[in-house]
Amino acid sequence: MNFKDKMRVAVGTAGTSLIIGLDPVYEKIPAIIRRKAFSKADAVTTFCREIIEHTTPYCAGYKLNLAFFEALGDQGLDVFGQVCSAIPFDKLLIADAKRGDIGNTTQMYAQAYMRKFRADAVTLNPLMGIETLLPFLKDSRRAVFALTLTSNPGAADFLLQKLENGRTLSEEIATRLQQLSEHDLALGTLGMVVGATQAEKLAPVLDLFPKAPLLIPGFGAQGGKVEELVSLLAARQHAAFPVVGRSIIYEFSDEDEHKWYKTVMLATKHFRKVFEPLKSNIEAFTQAD
Amino acid sequence: MNFKDKMRVAVGTAGTSLIIGLDPVYEKIPAIIRRKAFSKADAVTTFCREIIEHTTPYCAGYKLNLAFFEALGDQGLDVFGQVCSAIPFDKLLIADAKRGDIGNTTQMYAQAYMRKFRADAVTLNPLMGIETLLPFLKDSRRAVFALTLTSNPGAADFLLQKLENGRTLSEEIATRLQQLSEHDLALGTLGMVVGATQAEKLAPVLDLFPKAPLLIPGFGAQGGKVEELVSLLAARQHAAFPVVGRSIIYEFSDEDEHKWYKTVMLATKHFRKVFEPLKSNIEAFTQAD
Repeated sequence: MNFKDKMRVAVGTAGTSLIIGLDPVYEKIPAIIRRKAFSKADAVTTFCREIIEHTTPYCAGYKLNLAFFEALGDQGLDVFGQVCSAIPFDKLLIADAKRGDIGNTTQMYAQAYMRKFRADAVTLNPLMGIETLLPFLKDSRRAVFALTLTSNPGAADFLLQKLENGRTLSEEIATRLQQLSEHDLALGTLGMVVGATQAEKLAPVLDLFPKAPLLIPGFGAQGGKVEELVSLLAARQHAAFPVVGRSIIYEFSDEDEHKWYKTVMLATKHFRKVFEPLKSNIEAFTQAD
Repeated sequence: MNFKDKMRVAVGTAGTSLIIGLDPVYEKIPAIIRRKAFSKADAVTTFCREIIEHTTPYCAGYKLNLAFFEALGDQGLDVFGQVCSAIPFDKLLIADAKRGDIGNTTQMYAQAYMRKFRADAVTLNPLMGIETLLPFLKDSRRAVFALTLTSNPGAADFLLQKLENGRTLSEEIATRLQQLSEHDLALGTLGMVVGATQAEKLAPVLDLFPKAPLLIPGFGAQGGKVEELVSLLAARQHAAFPVVGRSIIYEFSDEDEHKWYKTVMLATKHFRKVFEPLKSNIEAFTQAD
């Protein structure tokens, strides 16, 4: 099953392209889970598994942010692997690794995330050049989302700077990705990570790579102007995967700890509704060529 | 002990600023180790420990490339942690992670590499802006080496592109790092990762951040013009840490497997001699203000 087919299945069965961001922080986990856990790693594993169990019908997949697993130290990748295993086969598994390196190093990262952990997609950092993405594009079952435009203030430092050719660095990255996506060697699907809070800066980047599927963190807690952006993306017919993390997974209060996952489910359903206009774009994308 | 003191001790006791790059690949490990190991992870751990044991007197420290540990899957960070623990306290431990992310994510990476694994220094990718480096600079015992100029062909894609202000992206990064290094908030030491094969492109970048300590992979197997670059760096009085990986750690033949580490030791001593002109620069750097 290639990545487009997997997209179609994942979005089709859930009726949404919503991706839940799993950024587990031990201190924020429901007290009931922390009390029963025999270690921090165990608590994080249980928390993520329960989130997955209760939200699976209402989302297209999960984005696991590696930093939050690595912060566990020695056991970090073991926990990451266990959480990956808990994700049902018809959901997208996105490893948010933002790796980027040369030659044999980038091959090792590809081995780790695409073969060992069997992620459907990986986020990558293209700073060191387009060649650093290639080992991740050798398998039609997989996708790469390359960092193109972010929504943090620091985007002004480099990504929004203008090059001599008149493009911003973000626009240059989009241009190079578009070219790569048409190359015979790119068997996997190539997309972009774009931030959710800079809708007015998004349009020129999207123009340069109009067929790119998009991974869009920054909805919810990170404060993007949701409706405005959803309308923009829907109108432009981009295959967009909005990611909501904290505004779903920490959406519970300690007073009601035995039913903490109920508010998590409600929040997931809420965002599924918000992102409804994006669903049909995915269907169109997966049916094209 | 702050990072400069640690630098002085590490370089002083070994008489060199040579850093050994640990990029362990199971298939390349001596057969005698593979036969006795009960798993790939075990073989990698033993191999790295034996390299460390036999090279410690002749190098200033070790750069561990995370990709090669992550490629082991679930056990990757456990092996990484065990190898970190095998590095003597008077050697520099550099986590070659090339991470870069925003806000709470970059804090998690800092927690992982600076607190859990206690690396003295971490390599970072600055694409998403200077703010992404800050959580790593809050501790005077630690250092950050930010990717500034690389030696791969893909450097031409973005890093060597000219901006509207006339600087290349690499030069812009160097400029921003220099400014950050003078900021009160930067308690840790801030340096640059620069590639070893583009000596003629290096000079303008070094001019913009002349006090930066440098981490320079790409000697040996990656094929930098060694003498030329060593002369350049020595003359400019840069505190430079040359990294040699494959040309040391795989410098053995299978015929002599019981004594494989002897050629590794010889290769280490060879490179220590090659880099002798760089030693006094470190002493000058650690004694300045």
